[in-house]
Amino acid sequence: MQRYKGIVSYDGTEYCGFQLQPRDRTVQGEIEKALKKLHKGSEIKIQASGRTDAGVHAKGQVIHFDSDLDIPAGKWELAVNALLPHDIVFSTIEPVNMDFHARYNVTGKEYRYFIHLSERRDPFKRNHAYYYPYKLDIEAIREATGYFIGEHDFTSFCSMKTDKEDKVRTITSMELVEEDDMLIFSFKGNGFLYNMVRIIIGTLLDVGRGKRKPESINAILAKKDRKAAGKTASANGLYLWKVYY
Amino acid sequence: MQRYKGIVSYDGTEYCGFQLQPRDRTVQGEIEKALKKLHKGSEIKIQASGRTDAGVHAKGQVIHFDSDLDIPAGKWELAVNALLPHDIVFSTIEPVNMDFHARYNVTGKEYRYFIHLSERRDPFKRNHAYYYPYKLDIEAIREATGYFIGEHDFTSFCSMKTDKEDKVRTITSMELVEEDDMLIFSFKGNGFLYNMVRIIIGTLLDVGRGKRKPESINAILAKKDRKAAGKTASANGLYLWKVYY
Repeated sequence: MQRYKGIVSYDGTEYCGFQLQPRDRTVQGEIEKALKKLHKGSEIKIQASGRTDAGVHAKGQVIHFDSDLDIPAGKWELAVNALLPHDIVFSTIEPVNMDFHARYNVTGKEYRYFIHLSERRDPFKRNHAYYYPYKLDIEAIREATGYFIGEHDFTSFCSMKTDKEDKVRTITSMELVEEDDMLIFSFKGNGFLYNMVRIIIGTLLDVGRGKRKPESINAILAKKDRKAAGKTASANGLYLWKVYY
Repeated sequence: MQRYKGIVSYDGTEYCGFQLQPRDRTVQGEIEKALKKLHKGSEIKIQASGRTDAGVHAKGQVIHFDSDLDIPAGKWELAVNALLPHDIVFSTIEPVNMDFHARYNVTGKEYRYFIHLSERRDPFKRNHAYYYPYKLDIEAIREATGYFIGEHDFTSFCSMKTDKEDKVRTITSMELVEEDDMLIFSFKGNGFLYNMVRIIIGTLLDVGRGKRKPESINAILAKKDRKAAGKTASANGLYLWKVYY
């Protein structure tokens, strides 16, 4: 038996999230179906670095699985991609030590969030960026991002639907880039709570529109109350960009 | 009564083409439904510069319609866009003379065709470019494009399902640009036959793979036989880019 680590990119638009569900179409469901075909009907379970929600995308989600199929190096991803729908694509599938675990060994993650700033919608961006037609004070947003860096209790920026007790996480960097009519956020940290990036974005958009001051982030963090923060920004702008081990 | 000219962009992925059909979802159907709502239930017929097929996109399709609604300049497109699905977006809707006709007054069109050249599919490009994993001789393709320029009988490059008798058209320019992993063709001409751009692309891809010589284009044109040309390239790479009047 050999363990494999796969790096997979997917367009989350047509999926009810990553995690397997009995009735709905999920990314995990499609990958396990493809692996089952490849293994002539044997069930292969995969483990991912974490879930992504309905409509959320991934450029570098990481999974692992075990197999005793003998497929030459460099051919695994071709074999699996050939059995997957075109909105899920593995960039690599490589052998790893049996003690590698896609979830337990995660040391950090990068998420990106894309906002399409324009007076006019773009039909070709609708599923891959959050459309936001209002003027934003980018400098105020940039100032506000500074308050998130470091170790904080992110209770105010976590969905109340979570089952996690410990809400302390460390954000190591937050960058903001403007590219044409796109505003792109990059978040790196040791872990992210349920909806955390989307609630941070919703709150930063309030800052950008002048509804909150940049320095108000400190008070929101201190309140440890989801209601103190802004709305959860929509799923279509969010990408799980990279997983670190 | 006032005539309006609208420039509209759409993602053709989820439509059975532009032209109204009794049962299927079409771009014309959605636009006329939105206009009917805006006109409190009165039917408004639109005329377009021409049809586009299922899965074909538009950046600058042009339509006209007549209305006696009194909407201030600059607000028409906002009013209509608000009633449309997000994959159809008007950039402008402006008053024109009553003798303007979106189809009869066309003097030329530009189409673009996007080919995604990569060893790996990209889940985010799957509906908006034709994925082509094979190595291409770009210089041979560039040489072949030269044979299309000018006035020709394009019978060999027209679907046999056409109802047009006269197959003589003039291509005024054909450009080829490489941008990252995208190969982008731009075609300008006085008119294009049914599937003409897609059959030209299918034939140029044969040239790029060495299956045909660039100079064979002359013989294919001379044969006036659809079977002499290459396959019809897929709809997802094609964009009606601009209409000239």
